[in-house]
Amino acid sequence: MSEPLRSQRIGIVGLGVLGGALARSLRASEASRLISAYSTDPADTDQALREGVIDVVAPSSEECVSAQDVVIYATPLDATVELVRAHTGLWGDAVVTDVASLKAPVMEAVRHTSGASRFMGSHPIAGSEGSGFGQGSADLFVGAPVWITPGGCASDVQASITALWKEVGARPQITDAGEHDARMVWISHTPQLLANALARTLQRAGISARDLGAGGRDMTRLAASAPEMWNSLLTAAAADDAAALRKVAIELEGIASSLEAGDFTMLTQLMRETQAWRGEV
Amino acid sequence: MSEPLRSQRIGIVGLGVLGGALARSLRASEASRLISAYSTDPADTDQALREGVIDVVAPSSEECVSAQDVVIYATPLDATVELVRAHTGLWGDAVVTDVASLKAPVMEAVRHTSGASRFMGSHPIAGSEGSGFGQGSADLFVGAPVWITPGGCASDVQASITALWKEVGARPQITDAGEHDARMVWISHTPQLLANALARTLQRAGISARDLGAGGRDMTRLAASAPEMWNSLLTAAAADDAAALRKVAIELEGIASSLEAGDFTMLTQLMRETQAWRGEV
Repeated sequence: MSEPLRSQRIGIVGLGVLGGALARSLRASEASRLISAYSTDPADTDQALREGVIDVVAPSSEECVSAQDVVIYATPLDATVELVRAHTGLWGDAVVTDVASLKAPVMEAVRHTSGASRFMGSHPIAGSEGSGFGQGSADLFVGAPVWITPGGCASDVQASITALWKEVGARPQITDAGEHDARMVWISHTPQLLANALARTLQRAGISARDLGAGGRDMTRLAASAPEMWNSLLTAAAADDAAALRKVAIELEGIASSLEAGDFTMLTQLMRETQAWRGEV
Repeated sequence: MSEPLRSQRIGIVGLGVLGGALARSLRASEASRLISAYSTDPADTDQALREGVIDVVAPSSEECVSAQDVVIYATPLDATVELVRAHTGLWGDAVVTDVASLKAPVMEAVRHTSGASRFMGSHPIAGSEGSGFGQGSADLFVGAPVWITPGGCASDVQASITALWKEVGARPQITDAGEHDARMVWISHTPQLLANALARTLQRAGISARDLGAGGRDMTRLAASAPEMWNSLLTAAAADDAAALRKVAIELEGIASSLEAGDFTMLTQLMRETQAWRGEV
């Protein structure tokens, strides 16, 4: 009688939208797995256990990441930075990743630690306006780009985490943490804060969100995002975010001046150029 | 033998998205109608005639609006203002309306003319990012709000135009032209120009529209709008548009300052308030 294959042991810290979606899609695969999870919200782990999505509710984050083959941090950025820094000695030979949307603070936290060679950062471009385990569907990552930052990790770590993302349907792409974060300021933080600024301006003008047409609804949808999710991201990128918002403010001032000067040639030119730029999607 | 009921004669000036959609949905109804149309783009009227959507291609805008029961101007704002001013003596007993998205300039153009009592302004909140007759589907107005500005029109005009909008499935709501236009600055022009400003800023930062996630795509979708459509609207509301953009720029400056000062209490408060405001949709 042959020895049965040992199950792959996976520890997931944080079981919100992203951690929940990962647990669901890893469970759905053929592979034999023992999935443990830890959450500061017991409602999420209780539901996951009840639904058979996880096998073990870990009593602490430390126990969740000890003696595993794979460890995934699916917590907000500030918690991720604290946890990886504190846990680096617990990982052993596991392959370790996270899902925070800024990568330099996380890569910096593991650099020069004993776990540096076991950790590769990840940022899946997927999510939901909702929150909690209930919102993380098994197909959340299908077709989604995932930025991965190998930093100083060992080649088996990069190969395993890359394979894990492909297994859940995502498209991993290697990047540098600093370049990645600079891009996030433009493509994520700036649109988010602009939606907040527009919503605040409309609110002050006495406009109800119900008065909006399709365009105005698009332009304020992000204003419905949860502040909790953004706190640590904005803290980490505060100076770059501020500089980016000031650049948008300068463009607005330029448009306002053109309007007042009756310079519609400039405005038409601007609209034609942004139309061409946006048409590339 | 009883006299057959005379067909209702309808003249539509401009056969783009809105004029085309109106012609299609009026044609689709049970009523017996003789629909004439005039367009500066013969391709639109030719196609409409070929498809049986209109019965007559009028050789000029003047002939299109003479000896009709209903006249509809579906032209850009600046053309509408010029045409109604020039045509007011041609309308006779017809009921007349337009579809321009600002109402004060149009209402001002007919006021104190012989046609003032025959004209009621309309602004349907419906459209398409595309352009031309081909883009105006018969169900474009189903469920759409239509702002109507009676001004000094006769009661039969108000009743007939209101009935016409209801027939195509729209929901007419009476408003004052000045109040309507002030609201449009906030809910339409400001989101539009903000999308242009964001697109321009991202373009200058070397970001491709293909790099965007769902949020960034929403926030720049309006940047793909055609400049042609916006020229006369921005001209008519230039001072108010400029003032509105400066208010958004002030909010952006406030957020930038909070970021730099590390005042995340203010930012969380802002996000919480705009989340509540946007949640009303």
